Amino acid sequence: MRPDGRGLIEVRARGGPYFVHVGPGVLERVPTAAAESARGGRVAVISDDRVGPIHGERVAELCTAHGLEVTYLTFRAGEASKTRKSWSILTDQMLDAGLGRDSCVVAVGGGVTTDLGGFVAATYLRGVPVVQVPTSYLAMIDASVGGKTGVDVRAGKNLVGAFHPPAAVLADTAVLSTLPREERAQGLVEAFKHGAILDEAYFAELTSVTDELLAADTTAATAVVSRSVQLKAEVVENDEFEGGRRQILNFGHTIGHAIEAASDYALGHGSAVALGMLAEAWIGEQTGVTSPGVGGVLAAALEPLLDPGEATVEASDALAYLSSDKKARGGRPRFVLLDRIGQVAEGDGWTHSIDDELVAGALTRVLDRS
Amino acid sequence: MRPDGRGLIEVRARGGPYFVHVGPGVLERVPTAAAESARGGRVAVISDDRVGPIHGERVAELCTAHGLEVTYLTFRAGEASKTRKSWSILTDQMLDAGLGRDSCVVAVGGGVTTDLGGFVAATYLRGVPVVQVPTSYLAMIDASVGGKTGVDVRAGKNLVGAFHPPAAVLADTAVLSTLPREERAQGLVEAFKHGAILDEAYFAELTSVTDELLAADTTAATAVVSRSVQLKAEVVENDEFEGGRRQILNFGHTIGHAIEAASDYALGHGSAVALGMLAEAWIGEQTGVTSPGVGGVLAAALEPLLDPGEATVEASDALAYLSSDKKARGGRPRFVLLDRIGQVAEGDGWTHSIDDELVAGALTRVLDRS
Repeated sequence: MRPDGRGLIEVRARGGPYFVHVGPGVLERVPTAAAESARGGRVAVISDDRVGPIHGERVAELCTAHGLEVTYLTFRAGEASKTRKSWSILTDQMLDAGLGRDSCVVAVGGGVTTDLGGFVAATYLRGVPVVQVPTSYLAMIDASVGGKTGVDVRAGKNLVGAFHPPAAVLADTAVLSTLPREERAQGLVEAFKHGAILDEAYFAELTSVTDELLAADTTAATAVVSRSVQLKAEVVENDEFEGGRRQILNFGHTIGHAIEAASDYALGHGSAVALGMLAEAWIGEQTGVTSPGVGGVLAAALEPLLDPGEATVEASDALAYLSSDKKARGGRPRFVLLDRIGQVAEGDGWTHSIDDELVAGALTRVLDRS
Repeated sequence: MRPDGRGLIEVRARGGPYFVHVGPGVLERVPTAAAESARGGRVAVISDDRVGPIHGERVAELCTAHGLEVTYLTFRAGEASKTRKSWSILTDQMLDAGLGRDSCVVAVGGGVTTDLGGFVAATYLRGVPVVQVPTSYLAMIDASVGGKTGVDVRAGKNLVGAFHPPAAVLADTAVLSTLPREERAQGLVEAFKHGAILDEAYFAELTSVTDELLAADTTAATAVVSRSVQLKAEVVENDEFEGGRRQILNFGHTIGHAIEAASDYALGHGSAVALGMLAEAWIGEQTGVTSPGVGGVLAAALEPLLDPGEATVEASDALAYLSSDKKARGGRPRFVLLDRIGQVAEGDGWTHSIDDELVAGALTRVLDRS
């Protein structure tokens, strides 16, 4: 982190390095980043109809004031918009506006917007740069790094997309205060995941500043987003297309996705992943892979992030999802297990195959608990 | 070329090198190439309903005999199928079949199939490998190398897509005999373009074996496809994302695309590009960029490839397209001009800006001629 308290992290991607700027006020750097990516001076600012009026329009105005020609596009907020249809509409709107290959996309919003806007950019005229402006913890911590873009289809979430690393990421931690507290909690789960798999000291720090993070304190938020981006970048840089060690980022996600799907997505992604981490920690302890007590430490740390009034999910539904997923994807689901807090157990290519009975036991345990 | 008369050309792409196999019978190598790309042993063979019964089904059978699990998918033949809708349907069919990230796509057909199948692969689960099996001269010569994939949209052709280099290309020159002679002529235009921009000796060779090529003589075809692939690979390797010198491959295409669009795509791509090359040679000679007489040499060489009964196109329609394209893409169209046969004039970043009047003159000249 630089002395002014704003983080600046370099991420090395195959197409060249890019910077993630983290800190209060970095939104003002969007026009410079966009101008560098759009030789033709034209940009498409994409936002949803909830974040747009708060931050998207402001970004568009900043770009216009900087001398850029802005095409401002919005779509209806929510995961239900992360579709091929929205992607087609946004693409056609950009084509109608005559944006050429020397233009770029600026995506302003949460994970839906960064994923959808990123996929529009990835395929527009076979690819134009995208400047990502994440406005939620989840998007800042998770979607900023790695270049994953895509949309949901009937068969599942994120099944169509592309790896398209951004030209730059501007994560303005001052905007987090405009986010509902519950969404902040959802996003922070991924930060705890980074601590759990990679950095015990960071995990401890997160538990000590959870209240400040939930209150969107910009100093705490800037430190945490910066550290998470750094940790994720180190993993992704060495395995850009997710063939090997990058899979450790899926800790909590094999079961988390199943729980999320079993709730018909009524349960937030963060809550589902939190439960997934607890379940996978329990599995790890039961199989002797994970040190005893890790599940308890995780549970205590994640407690403040879990919404007590959240949707109930049946263990049998989550199990059924895992089993249909297994059938559909032509292989047993595989699990990332911790060795201890801060360290993943290497296993067979970073993942483990687990008996159905044990998975059922873990699901019953964490879902009854919730 | 190797001693057995089959070409094997290595292409260096950013994601790693791949091989283009050229020669009669290389179709039989598809299963080996597919198995190398699909660790899970499952492949989607994509073909259209015209090429499918001739070659697609055979490729599927070869793959099955090799022990691969094949999902055989077809779409209706023709450029009208190169759409986001076809892409969505093929993607969903692959998802329904449960193909995972350890599977691959095998695209068997002409340029529509290699472009569409390539784009399906580029975006399926954020990208799976594609083995390209081009069955037309155009697809072998032009679509095999460079990794361009995509679909057409209302606003124009190939405006949505991705750069997704293949894992391997199998160009079986024995299948060219199943192609209508007229389609062979269309595809060979691109070979002459390669000679015109890069290799005078190759251009001369092409003029001397045009009859054999049109008759799908496999020896001549193997030599020419191999040489064109080699020439294109050298250009593309040094400019994968089309920022610089790769633009020389657009010789004949600025005007060619306008003529093709003005004919409502009744005129074949090859014929349109042939006329585009003649027009751009004339412009080059008029501006003193191109050596005198080049247009005449080109015209004599391309004559056997032009269909005398082809669609008539009005110069004014082609001009209107160029002008609307100019307006839409936010810049004047730029032209690749020859210095002489085998050499492009460097210009300003390999392209030239040309007065509208001169373009109009060129269009009138070549379209009245046709």
